[in-house]
Amino acid sequence: MITKEEASRLIRIGRDFMHMPEEDPEYNSDQYSDVPAPPLFKDPVSDVIIDLPMDFDSLKADTPLLDIVNRRSSHRVYTEEYISLLQLSYLLWCAQGVKGKRGKNYCTLRTVPCGGSRHEFDVYFAVQYVEGLKPGYYHYLPEHHQIEFLGEESDIRSFINESVAKQTWAVKASVVFYFDMVAYRAEWRYGIYTHRVALMDLGYISENIYLASEVLGLGSCALGSISEGIANEKFGLDGSEEFILLAHPVGTIKEADRQKELDFYAFVHDYDK
Amino acid sequence: MITKEEASRLIRIGRDFMHMPEEDPEYNSDQYSDVPAPPLFKDPVSDVIIDLPMDFDSLKADTPLLDIVNRRSSHRVYTEEYISLLQLSYLLWCAQGVKGKRGKNYCTLRTVPCGGSRHEFDVYFAVQYVEGLKPGYYHYLPEHHQIEFLGEESDIRSFINESVAKQTWAVKASVVFYFDMVAYRAEWRYGIYTHRVALMDLGYISENIYLASEVLGLGSCALGSISEGIANEKFGLDGSEEFILLAHPVGTIKEADRQKELDFYAFVHDYDK
Repeated sequence: MITKEEASRLIRIGRDFMHMPEEDPEYNSDQYSDVPAPPLFKDPVSDVIIDLPMDFDSLKADTPLLDIVNRRSSHRVYTEEYISLLQLSYLLWCAQGVKGKRGKNYCTLRTVPCGGSRHEFDVYFAVQYVEGLKPGYYHYLPEHHQIEFLGEESDIRSFINESVAKQTWAVKASVVFYFDMVAYRAEWRYGIYTHRVALMDLGYISENIYLASEVLGLGSCALGSISEGIANEKFGLDGSEEFILLAHPVGTIKEADRQKELDFYAFVHDYDK
Repeated sequence: MITKEEASRLIRIGRDFMHMPEEDPEYNSDQYSDVPAPPLFKDPVSDVIIDLPMDFDSLKADTPLLDIVNRRSSHRVYTEEYISLLQLSYLLWCAQGVKGKRGKNYCTLRTVPCGGSRHEFDVYFAVQYVEGLKPGYYHYLPEHHQIEFLGEESDIRSFINESVAKQTWAVKASVVFYFDMVAYRAEWRYGIYTHRVALMDLGYISENIYLASEVLGLGSCALGSISEGIANEKFGLDGSEEFILLAHPVGTIKEADRQKELDFYAFVHDYDK
């Protein structure tokens, strides 16, 4: 049991963490200590590498930003239909696509901003309903806009359910993205100042998933409350140097489910005095 | 001087902060302890309240998302021209516009996602070149998409320069947004779990500023390294219950400045071995 005093103390610590500390002029991160930069990308571990289609014209994804942000809302009721490989490709491109590099190994230029541009998140994902892909686990290879197949799974719903701390609605998603913090990739540059910035970076990525989903007529809802250990284990991450921080289910939706979406907020009246 | 050991310790603390802690089933935030919710909006403090125009048709802001993310990059070279009040209105709407509420005071539905939807950031801004607005300080009133005028300033460039820790390029921005964490607005709901989520929320907002700027042909670059105290003092924030976490200059740009933008990265070769 957390006492009131302990909760106050933890809240003060949380607030303190949010601030950018005064820079210590005598502190140098590894970048400024002549340590060579770690790789911008993880090497593939699988022999099964799939090129993603890049001709997005047929998606007719031309909704203006104003309409996207006006229509966007969280969606938790999915109809379990297939999305196309091109739609998956579009989601990954908007979230993390690589447009170029600075230097040989300094940073990547992507479709999404990133403090310091080290782009320290990798994207893993669980596929249930994507045309042309076996249900199972995958990893995005951003350098050449490819994915690698990590393994099949007959009971992927159990994994999804456990990994998102039993927020059971997520098991009907067509795909669930998991964002992996590759800590030292960013710490090389920002050292002790890395972590608050990296959480903002994760927001940038997650927003692009929301917006791209809305453009495609798909539904999405980011999940910060996850069972990180279960996701880390599945994707072979040690939980210290790398760890999953956010899950992002994306699924097919239909207009008739609007009331079911609202049912998720039935509890509101209890707290609205 | 921070020793290597101390830096390692701080990096471990930073990583630890990023994780969502295991939920303590016996911990209740104020929401679950029957404490009434704090207000969703701050009351205006000024008598000068300006309605923002909402008919965005004339902006012809119809760039598809794919083109936006493909073109977007950070911009730090501004031409010091005026933007229109309608453009400012579009930026604020995309970043924080209120589309509705749940309950009387439970949460707002906005043009941007937010963990728990308490939308805990307020937007202050410094105006240099916005048609129809005096140079000075303003605060966004999202409930009715208005702004309030907080005060004139003859030497706004000095304030901008000092507030962004002398990243001097920012002083040529047409407008600089400052995002104010109103801590308890979110803590009421998420308590000790608030702060990592709120940093992601700030990323959502910042991404919408980037994307909306790109749509309007304006340039933008978020600034996490700021002199928070200077910004807090200007906007009357105590630095504990409320504090500025990010500055976001937006300015006019021209194609011919592309090389000057690249000059900001001239240092890269020193660290790219």
